[in-house]
Formats: sequence, C-alpha cells, structure tokens
Amino acid sequence: MAGSSFGNIIRLSTFGESHGVAVGGILEGIPAGFLIDLEAIQKELDRRRPGQSAIVTQRKESDKVRFLSGIFEGKTLGTPIGFLVENEDQRSADYNELEKAFRPSHADFTYQQKYGIRDYRGGGRSSARETVSRVVAGAIAKQVLAHEGIRIDAFVDKIGPLEWTGTWNPELKDISESTVVRVPSLELAEQMEALIREVRKEGDTIGGRIRCVIEGVPAGLGEPVFDKLHAELGKAMLSINAVKGFEIGSGFGSVTMKGSEHNDLFTTDGKTKTNHSGGIQGGISNGMPIDFRVAFKPVATIMQTQETINESFEPVSLSGKGRHDPCVVPRAVPIVETMAALVILDYLFIQKAYH
Amino acid sequence: MAGSSFGNIIRLSTFGESHGVAVGGILEGIPAGFLIDLEAIQKELDRRRPGQSAIVTQRKESDKVRFLSGIFEGKTLGTPIGFLVENEDQRSADYNELEKAFRPSHADFTYQQKYGIRDYRGGGRSSARETVSRVVAGAIAKQVLAHEGIRIDAFVDKIGPLEWTGTWNPELKDISESTVVRVPSLELAEQMEALIREVRKEGDTIGGRIRCVIEGVPAGLGEPVFDKLHAELGKAMLSINAVKGFEIGSGFGSVTMKGSEHNDLFTTDGKTKTNHSGGIQGGISNGMPIDFRVAFKPVATIMQTQETINESFEPVSLSGKGRHDPCVVPRAVPIVETMAALVILDYLFIQKAYH
Amino acid sequence: MAGSSFGNIIRLSTFGESHGVAVGGILEGIPAGFLIDLEAIQKELDRRRPGQSAIVTQRKESDKVRFLSGIFEGKTLGTPIGFLVENEDQRSADYNELEKAFRPSHADFTYQQKYGIRDYRGGGRSSARETVSRVVAGAIAKQVLAHEGIRIDAFVDKIGPLEWTGTWNPELKDISESTVVRVPSLELAEQMEALIREVRKEGDTIGGRIRCVIEGVPAGLGEPVFDKLHAELGKAMLSINAVKGFEIGSGFGSVTMKGSEHNDLFTTDGKTKTNHSGGIQGGISNGMPIDFRVAFKPVATIMQTQETINESFEPVSLSGKGRHDPCVVPRAVPIVETMAALVILDYLFIQKAYH
Amino acid sequence: MAGSSFGNIIRLSTFGESHGVAVGGILEGIPAGFLIDLEAIQKELDRRRPGQSAIVTQRKESDKVRFLSGIFEGKTLGTPIGFLVENEDQRSADYNELEKAFRPSHADFTYQQKYGIRDYRGGGRSSARETVSRVVAGAIAKQVLAHEGIRIDAFVDKIGPLEWTGTWNPELKDISESTVVRVPSLELAEQMEALIREVRKEGDTIGGRIRCVIEGVPAGLGEPVFDKLHAELGKAMLSINAVKGFEIGSGFGSVTMKGSEHNDLFTTDGKTKTNHSGGIQGGISNGMPIDFRVAFKPVATIMQTQETINESFEPVSLSGKGRHDPCVVPRAVPIVETMAALVILDYLFIQKAYH
Repeated sequence: MAGSSFGNIIRLSTFGESHGVAVGGILEGIPAGFLIDLEAIQKELDRRRPGQSAIVTQRKESDKVRFLSGIFEGKTLGTPIGFLVENEDQRSADYNELEKAFRPSHADFTYQQKYGIRDYRGGGRSSARETVSRVVAGAIAKQVLAHEGIRIDAFVDKIGPLEWTGTWNPELKDISESTVVRVPSLELAEQMEALIREVRKEGDTIGGRIRCVIEGVPAGLGEPVFDKLHAELGKAMLSINAVKGFEIGSGFGSVTMKGSEHNDLFTTDGKTKTNHSGGIQGGISNGMPIDFRVAFKPVATIMQTQETINESFEPVSLSGKGRHDPCVVPRAVPIVETMAALVILDYLFIQKAYH
Repeated sequence: MAGSSFGNIIRLSTFGESHGVAVGGILEGIPAGFLIDLEAIQKELDRRRPGQSAIVTQRKESDKVRFLSGIFEGKTLGTPIGFLVENEDQRSADYNELEKAFRPSHADFTYQQKYGIRDYRGGGRSSARETVSRVVAGAIAKQVLAHEGIRIDAFVDKIGPLEWTGTWNPELKDISESTVVRVPSLELAEQMEALIREVRKEGDTIGGRIRCVIEGVPAGLGEPVFDKLHAELGKAMLSINAVKGFEIGSGFGSVTMKGSEHNDLFTTDGKTKTNHSGGIQGGISNGMPIDFRVAFKPVATIMQTQETINESFEPVSLSGKGRHDPCVVPRAVPIVETMAALVILDYLFIQKAYH
Repeated sequence: MAGSSFGNIIRLSTFGESHGVAVGGILEGIPAGFLIDLEAIQKELDRRRPGQSAIVTQRKESDKVRFLSGIFEGKTLGTPIGFLVENEDQRSADYNELEKAFRPSHADFTYQQKYGIRDYRGGGRSSARETVSRVVAGAIAKQVLAHEGIRIDAFVDKIGPLEWTGTWNPELKDISESTVVRVPSLELAEQMEALIREVRKEGDTIGGRIRCVIEGVPAGLGEPVFDKLHAELGKAMLSINAVKGFEIGSGFGSVTMKGSEHNDLFTTDGKTKTNHSGGIQGGISNGMPIDFRVAFKPVATIMQTQETINESFEPVSLSGKGRHDPCVVPRAVPIVETMAALVILDYLFIQKAYH
Repeated sequence: MAGSSFGNIIRLSTFGESHGVAVGGILEGIPAGFLIDLEAIQKELDRRRPGQSAIVTQRKESDKVRFLSGIFEGKTLGTPIGFLVENEDQRSADYNELEKAFRPSHADFTYQQKYGIRDYRGGGRSSARETVSRVVAGAIAKQVLAHEGIRIDAFVDKIGPLEWTGTWNPELKDISESTVVRVPSLELAEQMEALIREVRKEGDTIGGRIRCVIEGVPAGLGEPVFDKLHAELGKAMLSINAVKGFEIGSGFGSVTMKGSEHNDLFTTDGKTKTNHSGGIQGGISNGMPIDFRVAFKPVATIMQTQETINESFEPVSLSGKGRHDPCVVPRAVPIVETMAALVILDYLFIQKAYH
C-alpha cells in the first residue's frame, strides 16, 4: 500500500533511488514456460536510456539489466522475476548544494514534508530513473501481449505548439522510431528537433504530448465500476513523472460535442464507424483500438537561475547544473507503452480468471 | 478485485443495478465515535437526484438512504457502514425493446461481450444510478474531512462552448450551488441553461467540464511512485460515468509551456507564487489548493432515431425513449466531490499510518 | 483493509451488528450466467440457524436472505451480489446491564479498547451472527464448486473428550447431517448430545473440533510463498468466532513423527499411499483430498455467575442471561464449509487467471 | 496476488530460487528516519544460517545481505528497502538425478502440476532458502517494534516426544539461544540434541514445535472480522515451510475444556488471571502476552532410499543426498519471530491509521 507496487494479477513492485546502489523490481504473474527474449528487453531500455541522442540528457548509464530469479533455462518459472539495474553514473557532487534548496516544481519540498528526510542527490525516489524498472517489466509484458496478438504503439504527437495531425496506422511506427523525437513524420521531426535545440540553448525546457494506440485488444476487458479499463490506464499514465493530463478517445474535445455527433454507431461486424469512445465503453474494451493521449509538462530543471527557498524557508538562488532533458517526451514514449502493457496484460488475465 | 471496490483504508464497495431491487454499499474505515450528520448526507443525495430541476432527467426516485450497520446512537462504531437505497421508479417497460439492441456509445455491447448476459433494463450495473452509493459514502467522508479542515468544491466550468474563466474562491460556491447548472456565475448560468434547453429541444445532448478545488490539504499526502495523489484522483474521476479526460493544474495546457514559465516558484512561507502543479508535486500534496478538471462527454441517450445493431449483429433502428439528462454535468458535481473526498480521506489516513 | 473483506477474485465483504437493523454482504467474482439455486442457500442458512434443535440457542431468527442485486432472471450477472438478512429477535433488554460490564473471554473489552465505543447489545460486530452473511456467500460458492466437481464436507469429530476415530468417506455425510451434533456416528451422536445437555444443565459450555475434507480439488491450486493454500485455509478458519487452532493432515501429530513414516509415497497414478500432507504440498494442492481440523473453545457465555470488571475497571458480578449455545460446533459445521468453499473457489479462479 | 507478497502497510515482497542467482526482496512501509542497525540484521541471518551448528545442514552460505535502496546515511528514507543475498553454494550437481523424480512430501510434484515447469535444483522457489529474505525484513521490523516496547521471543518447546513444560519468561531467552536446539532448558537441550544426532544417524528426520510469546503489544490491534490478529498470525506461520498446525492460547486443548474453566477472568487492572485467550479476544489484542504454538513436520529429505515416481509417472528409486537438516525447528525459530514481527508491526500501523 506504500505506493511502489502496481497491478493485480500482473504486479510490479519497484525499488531504488536515482543515486543509490541500484534500481530494480519484482514482476509477478507472468505465466510459466514463456520463452523470454532478453535482447528485446535491452532494446526497450535503450529507447529510454540517457545519451541516446543529442537532444536528451547526457547522463551516462549503460542500463544493463540483471535478472536474479524467475527465469530458468531461458523460460519463465511462474515465480517472481527479480531484477536490478546498477546505478553507474552517480555524480552526486552535482547535487551537493541542493541539500538544503528546494528546486521549483520538483518533489524536493514535498518529499521533505512527507518524510522529514530525503536523498537529495538528484531526486532520489522521485527521479524518473525509477522508470528503468518499469521498462524492464513492460518489455516482458509486451512480449506476452504480442503472443496474444496485441500491440502497443506510443508516439509523440505534440511538442510545444508543433502538433502532428495525421491519421495513425501501425506502419507509421517505423518512421516515428527512426526520428529522435519519436513523431510519425520526418518533416515534423526536424521542426521539433530544431525547437528542442533552441529551447535548450535558452537553458529552458518545453512540454509535449504522447498518443498511444493499442490494437488487438479483445472486447470484454475492464472491470466495472471503479476499475474501468480507462480509469486504470489513466492512473498508470498519471503515475509517470511530469504527466499532467490524460484523455481517452474524444477526451476534452467531447466537452463541446453533441451526443448526435459523438455517439459511435455500430456496423454489422460489431465494430463502430467512429471511435470517440477510444476503444472503451462503460469501462470495458469494445474491440476497437484503444486510443489515448498523455500531457507532459516541461521538465522542471532549467539551466537558468531561479529564486527558491532552502529547508529553513530562507530565500536562495539556484542555478541549474547537471545533465537534464530539454524535453522529456522522446524518452517517455517507451514508458507510456510499458505502463499500457502492464495494464492490458493485467486486465487480460483478470478476465481469464472468470471464464 | 472485480472492480466494485475503491480505496485502501477508506474503502467503499458498491452493489446494485439501475432496475434491480436496490443500490447500496459498504463503507469501511471511518473512525469510531464520529457523530454523523444524517441530514447532510440526504442533502448530498438531493444534489445528484433526478428531477431536481427542469434541465435534468425526470425519473422519479426519492433516493432515501437506509443505514443498516456501523452507526449506533448517532455515532460511528468503527465497523463497516452498510446502507441501501431502494429503486422505486423501475419503469422497465421503457426498456423492453432494447433487449436485443445495443444503444450506441452505451455499455450494452461491452457488457454483453464481457459477461454473455446483462440486465438490459436501463443500463443495469453500468447505469449512473450506481453513483447514488458513492454519494452516500462521499457525504460521510466530507464530514470527516471538514473536521480536519479540508473542504472540497466542485463546479461546472464549461458546457459546450460556454466557459467560465473567472478566478475561483470558495465564496463563489453559494452562487454555483444556487444555479441549476452549478456554475459560479449567474449570467453564464442563464446562458448555459438556455443552451441545455435548446439542445434538449433538438432531442440531443451536450458535453461539459467540471473543475474541482480542494483546500486545506496538508503537505505530504500521496504515495510515490505508482499511487501518486493525482494518479489516484485521476482514476477516481475516470471511474465516473461519461468521463473522457482528467487534467491537474496546468494540464494539457502545459504541453505548450516552457519550464521557465511553468515552474512554481516558492515563497518564504513554503507556498508557491503560481499553482501550475495543481497542489501536487512528485505525486505528493504541497499544501497549495489541489485543482483539477474533468471532461464529460455528451450523454449517449438522445431522443433522435439512431441506426444500430442487435445481439445477432443485425441492423435495427432505435428511437430514444425514457427520461434522460440532456447534460450530465450539473448532477455530476456532487459525484466529483464525492470521489475526491474518498481519495483525500484515504490518503490522509494512509499518511497517518506511518507517523 | 479494515478487516471486513475476504478473498481475492472471489471476494466477500460483510457488514452488520448482531442487534442492528440487518446483517448482509456483497459477494464479488461469481461468474456470469450461473443459475443460482436459492433454496439450497436457504438450506445452508437453516443449518447454522438458532433454534434448529434442542441443544442450540433458542434465539428466534428466521434468517431469510433477501438478494438486492447481481441476480437477474435467476442467473448471475457477473456483477456484485448484494444481500441482507434482517435481524428480527433483537431482545436488547437482555443486554442492558452489560453496558458497562466486560463479559469474560468475549470481545467486549477489546472492542472498547480498540474503538472507544461499542454496540454493547450482544456482541455487536463481534457476534457470531456475522457468519450468516458468510453462509449466504459460501452456499453460492459451493454451488459453483459442485459444478466443477468439488465437494466440501465438514463434520464434528470431537466434543469434549468424546472423539470420533472412524475413517471418513463422503457417504457418511448423510449420517452426520442426520444427527443434531453433526457427527458421523449415531452412537457417538447420542453420547455427545447427552454430554451437551449435561453441560448445559450445569450452566456451562464445552469445546469441540470440526474436521473438513474437500474432494475433487485438482492439483495445482495455491500460491507460493505467502499465499499457500493451507495458509489461506488456516486464516479463513481462524477468522471464525471461537476458533483456537488449525491443523492440516498430520497436524500437531507430525511433531512426534519421523520423516520415514511421515513422507507420503507416490503411486504410479500420481496419488500418494498416505495423506499426511492433507492434500497440500509446498502450499499447492496435490490432487489428494484436502483434510484439516479446527479447534473450537467452549462458548464464553455461561449461565453461572462470574466476577468481572466494568468500563471503569471496577469489580462487578455478572450472571449469564440470554439464549446461548452450550456447544458451538454443531452450528459451526456449515460455517467451516463456507469458509473452505470461499478459499477453494478463489484459488481455483486465481489459477485460471494464469492459464 | 501471485503469492510472493505479505502484509498491508508493512509489506514484504520476495523473489528467488534456491539455486538461482540470488534471493531478496522489497520491504515497504518502514517509517522514514529510522536508524537501522545493520549488524543486528546480520545476526538474525546467522541464527537461521546453514552450518551454524553440528545438527543442522552443512550447506555453505555466508548469507551476507546487500541493501540496494531505501537507506541513506544509515537511516530509512521511507521508500522501499530493496535487498538481496547472493546464492553462493549452488552445488546443483547434487540435484541432477532429481530432474525427473518427484521427492516424496516435497513440492516437486505440485510445482510441476501447477506450472508445467520447475527449477529442479533443490526445490527452487519452494525451498526454505526463500526465508532468508523474510529474516532480513523481520530483523528490521523487530528493531522498529523494540522502539515501541514490543519484544518477540520464539523458542523450541518440543522435538519428537521431548517436551518443555516450564513457565516462560523473557529471561529464559538467553538460555534457549545458548543451546543449539533453542530450547529454554540446558538439560532438555542435551537430550534433544542427542535425539537429533540419533535420528540423523538413521538417515531420518524428526518433527518439532515452536512456541512464540510476544510482550508489550497494546490492546486494540487486530481487524474484525476476517483479519483477526490471530488469523493473520496463523496464516503467517502456516506460510513457513514444513508447518502443519497453528494454535493460540489454549489451542487444541480447549476442545476438552468447559467454559467455566476456560474463561479468562479480568482483574481490576484490565489484565486477566489466566491467558487461555493467548492475548487475543475477538481477533483483537487485549494487552496480555500473545502466545501461540507452531507444529513442524519432520523434514522430507531423508538419507534413506525411497520409492517414488518420475515426471512420466514411472516408478523410480531415490536415495537421499545433499546436505539437509535432520530437524528444522532450531533454524526455524528466527523465521517464526520474523513472521510474527511483520504481522504485529503491520497491525500496529493499521491501527494508527484510524486514530
């Protein structure tokens, strides 16, 4: 209940501070006898890894995962999969002056208020480094889902004012993954990259939005009334660092719509003509693609001087140091996919339990 | 795990179909010895009750709650509070033709796919009538929170294109509650009411948005990393019927912002100059007002004829009958407050557990 | 988490004080489309009902269950099954003098210490009347289990010094159920009944033991390491009022055994020659009958005068009144079966979730 | 839900197979700012370590714990404490012939039935080696409990027919811990040790019983009705390898007692003259010492030849090899204490949540 576990039948528990010994986790519920593709896991880690391109933080972490249990002769045992990733680049010296200063819009202040103590070296438990553990688990979940014919594709569809307005289809994934910003348009990718470079030059950061489409989900997943499928997806996304909003299907756009235009009419194959529902009705998947968007705020660490306070509530001046992302969304794409994968696999198995 | 329970220490379980015998629930975790104001609970039920004004459904339900346990001589015993509300106006005849037709953008199709059986009389378990039980629980939670100095105010801030752009303060609550649409502006209330009447005349419905502000929450509530306070609030809101989106603080607006304008700078009293964070940083409350918005789609039941399919996937024509809301948000205001109250009280007690 | 819920996929939540308005509960997780035998449920309630024979309490409760949701046209909907049983015979006057006196070996003292308030009328939430709700849920679970070829038989195998030492087989159930003490021997039944009458004449009570055998459980149920099948069964049994011990298979007798005599040797059909394991090895069912025993202490309410203290810790004299059981085990037999049924069905569905 | 987690607010999740890379876990819920005594943790590990005396298995494991997170500058951060213990002495060759043979009364058969795959090297996940992780967590819990004035003492009170019948007091702990069998009598210790040596000479094993007394627990811990304190303690104990029974207070002895002799009469200081209740009434602690007993079966691995079957259900002959314990109870004493500590601390914090 202390907040470091997620899921029901598929359950991930994580541990680790950004500048501690290691981050890692325990993944429970993966069926026995499943052949794990270890390389594919590492590939997912590389998608979120620092230093993967010129527009992300240059913190140096090789992010090699070490499995400690649950896999035997390449296959899952059905027992908990324990794993860890050592923290290598612990340049704690960068953080020493922070010991007593609360960085604006970080979790320094709130952790101090909550716990009365904190690992001040780079965010500690509140650091996005924690998501390394999620990606390991999500990569395994995605392999099991692929086996069930379910694929999850996240991509950037907005950075600052630059928005992708095309029509998604899974073939665009190759394009989005070929760009450093992970947007499904080479032209827009160039503009977005230029914007990020410019923002970074100003010592500033910028927000962005990720869209995620899940195909192959059978109708019937989701538990009424409190554990609606999109409610759990929403929680999963809102648990990712820097996320400020979640919307499914028509989302906030539905506010200005009328029922007659919003209703998704059925066709005789049980599909719907439109997908304002985003693949979920009454909290239960309807067989259409699940389609949602996630809003990320601009990264709080900027390379400009900011006025703030220290632990004694005295005013202090803080100038940005360290190696940080000018825009978080390119690296957040695999994290969105990972959380979606954990939710979908969990609900798939919950549904199996009753049949 | 079957989806009808919510919360950890404060835990609500609900039961009931819209046209069954009764709806009701069990509320666990309310401290012993608390003097319950039963009238205040009934008042909250009246805020969501059908027939309360000319612009909501005219279904006739007195919605009188009957407590079965957990309260003794007016005070809580610390044991589960069992309660029920009988379903009175079960005009099931209205629904007979629906038996085999899936209403567009309702949960008829998905429930049938999930369970292979459904109570086709008016939505059954998927009906918003289930929220009666939530409001009973939330009304109790609000009383406990008031005792802790915490108040929760939800109000409508958008219906269709009509948006309230004022600055909220709790004194506006009297105004918003004095209007049938629950918006904190008498002028806008008139326009919104007119819009809803017009939409209803067309046999149509319209979406809306609710904003919720919570004041008095101490810093330190929220559990990293998966059970962030806003992640739980988001799940709670997304579990409400017709909700398509949730955003906190700057929300989707943060996508186009830069870090230098988005960061909330501290003042020497531990507050922040701006509140783009919406009162939560790193998943933990920071002592500022918690501030979020919830998007509601237009009600799916319209009084126009729609093409749809029946259980054999054959095309059928469906003309709207029954008594439904042209716009759901006025009655959803107490439901938003109720879910917020359950989350905040739960997290308040979780925090107490560790201190 | 407040203690009134049990189970994972099959989950029962109960409410109700013995002298409140009603007891009842919510049962979640029963598969949709299951045809419920309502009469069979009532029969189970009659097995635990007061006044069923001359040797049990004569409190008058008809114990008629009223279903409020989750069942439609005789079949389960897959939604929560809400139900209640009204408390009819609330002779609270019997209890008035108890208001300030703590009855020895009851929960009066501990409830007062825990909550600072209690419903002093007959035990309130701590009364065995709460088990009415369990029996309703267990009766449904047993029907689903029967459908899966699993049967659960509990019977009395000891009252005071009188012990049944025969070899169990399911055909003995008719005999045990034909006796008022529920022991599978007519001769022993007579002796036990005589003992109970004698004990009652003395104004005293006596302990007893129940054995439970579950047949038809497939190999593979149970979750290592903390949720071992017998650990969950143990918790389920220890949650029943007046239970002081639980043992499976060889139980406490294993303490004096050697490995060479205790080990259950396999036969070539995958069965074992002996069943010291009690049907569970390493926490997982092995396909042999599950076989355990539960110890019940003598009922604490005796018709003799006892010295005790009141809420001010002053010495007071207490003389037994009210209508109580001289021996609890005959009425506890269906409760043991009910808790076993809830555990086995829950674990059966958990196992299905992973396959 | 997959069985490898225990507790609510204090929650332990473990991972690891006996012959895999490592065993370890995540402990959540320990309050922030608590100064951890790392040496004391290692001391607890040494109490359960193989090779600690001549009468236990000689498997060589140094069992050094490595903490990965949650502790900063010697103090807890309030974040999850991740830890691992490497498996050093993986003499897997000892187990090769077992690959296809099911060892009698082990979990080989049930794991194979459940998962269709197993790590056949020495028990894998079903091995008691998993309890290393529990002891690390329990050692921390015990430190927090000591800070609250609560102490937990387990000791051996029976091995085979040799039974300790003295009156316990905490001062006897030094004696019990000074003996290799952990019994509070030097004379009996000698006899028990002799018995174990004799049994081992025969290539056999023997059962035993552990008693546990917890002092300083305040009245009021325990959650009615399903999460009674002794029900959770019972589950905790029954989750330990080789345990076949659990009894509290009078336990199975209560079956032959009358209410008039069993009832614990109050004294005017709120204590009771006798403690047949074992410190818990109605599932809630009453302030008296909590007192229970746990039955351990004889270790299944014997050094004699046994007939069994292999994975094809063909008869095979199995002769014991490897290094195993002739009697498990001496090493199980710290495990009983550890599980008791996890339960008591969890329930202490649950109680705090509501006040």
